[in-house]
Amino acid sequence: MLKASICTIGDELLIGQVIDTNSASISRAVGAIGVKVTGMVSIPDDRDRIISDLKAQLAVNDIVISTGGLGPTKDDITKQALAELSGTDKYYMHEGQLAIVHEILKSRGLDVLDINRQQAMVPESCEVLLNKRGTAPIMVFRGLGKGNSTLYAMPGVPFETEAALPDVVEDIRAHYPTDNITHRNLMTYGLAESALAKKISDWEDSLPKDVHLAYLPDPLKGVRLRLSIYSGSKEVEKSIIDSKIAELSGIIGDYIYSYEDDTLEGAIGRILKEKNLTLSAAESCTGGEIAHLITTVPGSSAYFLGSVTSYAVKIKENVLGVPAETIEKHGVVSSETACAMASGVRKLTGSDYAVSTTGYAGPGGGNEKNPEGTVWVGIATPNGVFSEKFCYKNDRRRNIQRFAASALFTLLKRLKQELN
Amino acid sequence: MLKASICTIGDELLIGQVIDTNSASISRAVGAIGVKVTGMVSIPDDRDRIISDLKAQLAVNDIVISTGGLGPTKDDITKQALAELSGTDKYYMHEGQLAIVHEILKSRGLDVLDINRQQAMVPESCEVLLNKRGTAPIMVFRGLGKGNSTLYAMPGVPFETEAALPDVVEDIRAHYPTDNITHRNLMTYGLAESALAKKISDWEDSLPKDVHLAYLPDPLKGVRLRLSIYSGSKEVEKSIIDSKIAELSGIIGDYIYSYEDDTLEGAIGRILKEKNLTLSAAESCTGGEIAHLITTVPGSSAYFLGSVTSYAVKIKENVLGVPAETIEKHGVVSSETACAMASGVRKLTGSDYAVSTTGYAGPGGGNEKNPEGTVWVGIATPNGVFSEKFCYKNDRRRNIQRFAASALFTLLKRLKQELN
Repeated sequence: MLKASICTIGDELLIGQVIDTNSASISRAVGAIGVKVTGMVSIPDDRDRIISDLKAQLAVNDIVISTGGLGPTKDDITKQALAELSGTDKYYMHEGQLAIVHEILKSRGLDVLDINRQQAMVPESCEVLLNKRGTAPIMVFRGLGKGNSTLYAMPGVPFETEAALPDVVEDIRAHYPTDNITHRNLMTYGLAESALAKKISDWEDSLPKDVHLAYLPDPLKGVRLRLSIYSGSKEVEKSIIDSKIAELSGIIGDYIYSYEDDTLEGAIGRILKEKNLTLSAAESCTGGEIAHLITTVPGSSAYFLGSVTSYAVKIKENVLGVPAETIEKHGVVSSETACAMASGVRKLTGSDYAVSTTGYAGPGGGNEKNPEGTVWVGIATPNGVFSEKFCYKNDRRRNIQRFAASALFTLLKRLKQELN
Repeated sequence: MLKASICTIGDELLIGQVIDTNSASISRAVGAIGVKVTGMVSIPDDRDRIISDLKAQLAVNDIVISTGGLGPTKDDITKQALAELSGTDKYYMHEGQLAIVHEILKSRGLDVLDINRQQAMVPESCEVLLNKRGTAPIMVFRGLGKGNSTLYAMPGVPFETEAALPDVVEDIRAHYPTDNITHRNLMTYGLAESALAKKISDWEDSLPKDVHLAYLPDPLKGVRLRLSIYSGSKEVEKSIIDSKIAELSGIIGDYIYSYEDDTLEGAIGRILKEKNLTLSAAESCTGGEIAHLITTVPGSSAYFLGSVTSYAVKIKENVLGVPAETIEKHGVVSSETACAMASGVRKLTGSDYAVSTTGYAGPGGGNEKNPEGTVWVGIATPNGVFSEKFCYKNDRRRNIQRFAASALFTLLKRLKQELN
């Protein structure tokens, strides 16, 4: 099995001002062709360190992929370090990348400056894969390490890295024998990691030695279960995993909302689209997060009509038509208000389904009955109005995420119940 | 200067299913007391690898902070590896943490299982810092490396790691001499990294040798400039940075929206709160992202009344009161529709200010005049209605982010213009 390591370069990573998302993208991309990522390292914009760390990684890996340090500004010195590492001090202008530099700056209405042009200058020791979304090309240095290791130096901007990854993967396939690895994902929601682990403990013990199970909790998606097999034939692997997943469905079926890497909003979207139904939302404490999640799904305009974020009580009354008495009698955060909000936005927009939230995200707010961290979710459907309550104990940002995810899960459950 | 490295542990990181946010949080926290993070490493749930990598890091750093691998499920084997690394195979029950385990599970209405109880069992060789938000305690192993290095083993859940960081920082201060480091941040929006770099090139060349400048672009915040001094006296550092920042304001003042680490929505919130004004939003292509960003600011309910996400044309007409003729004549994505949406939501909610967006986030959509990636931003104020157009060329998710940030920046500019 091919071994790879990932090296992200930049002071901004080391001081924690930027979160590294490139390592995860790269790992997913190379993992799909069976390359095993053995480690990820983040190092500063330091010439000596770049050279020594990359050398160490090249000595024990077939492939090293670096990102960052290739920007036009003065704190980026990776390119010179790579030239030295590969034994050259000569550079050439890559005309293909230079054309892209011109095109990109023109489309932004900007002049091409010398520092932009320099982006297309690369060490003589490397080949180039074009960066179609940015100015710095991907540099490929071959024959390093013990003689057969390759270094791919990619730009640090995640949007550019992601776009260039298919070309890097293609290049790896063209130069190394790659094999297949089988991963299967199952999305669960509504059970904490430890409760889930207890429920499936016997099943987990029954897994063949080659099958690896991982629990991957995510506040917006629930707990993802991932089954992996690294060795054996593709067909055998598939059939083992399929039968194990069938067993698992029997144990925790109610909590599984998808049998692939998925999101709650994605699963909701597929059902609505298939059944030709529409959706709207009324958000208080989630402040737009539900609408935002729903509309990140491409094609969501086919089923999502719109939403009202009713932060002020007056908006709940005047726009959503929540009766003032309901709020007075039961409180803003209550089952009754959540239901009235859902019904209100369903009527306002003419949608088939509607979801609403009202709660206390904190800091502060809440009372004994509905303390800080409480959300009431309302669901209005052609068959009635329903509500459910959830309690969390997180900070504001995390509570908002959990509230939104709980609302989407409640909606998804209701859709399945009414439509299946 | 104290040196530290960060080691995140977990197969889920290596296969790219989870993005490591802990390293950045830890780095920011220890950086504030002058600890220099020399590297960040992510490694698999592999006993031998955990031991060898941590040993290597402890040999060249004063402090090593690990996260992850401490969950109750069967794929976590870090604790055993740490026991071995620190030369013991004996464990003790930490009663303080056990009490927290009971409390947390009770508050969630869950039974305390054996695997939960085991979370409070730790190797005899370590001291414990309590994890108040989760079940796995922070384990502190002293006297490692060359004899004076400390290993802090923290849980992997970011919410728990962040909450425990102040205690880890306090422990470092109690056991090592720590010094101060001066960072200053400047938030800019509206200039790309390379254009910004050209504009301030002479100024950058004039910086003293000890002052380090970094460009930190973020799609939601613009380009952050960070000035750092690692050595010298606190007073001298402060006065050097202050005078350099004053010079910079003279050069790019129009693009600077804050002189601290800030967000557009934070800066907007402060102005509205100070002037006792209210805000609403009407979103089409941004689908709730603007409302979401505004409401992530604690206390935003003081000025944010609410918003309408009008994904469907009918909602634009019926809820926001955009005239059907406006949409027919000028199109859904147009200056006129953006203005009518902003005016409409301002009227509907009775807010002082309103911001709107209508555009094509992609994939698909758009025309020659307003291609995919175009957004029109509308701003309605007590003094009139204004619009501005922005064009980007990203994927859907990134476009939505850029659109929302552009809308917030346009609003912020207008607020400053009308209120200063």
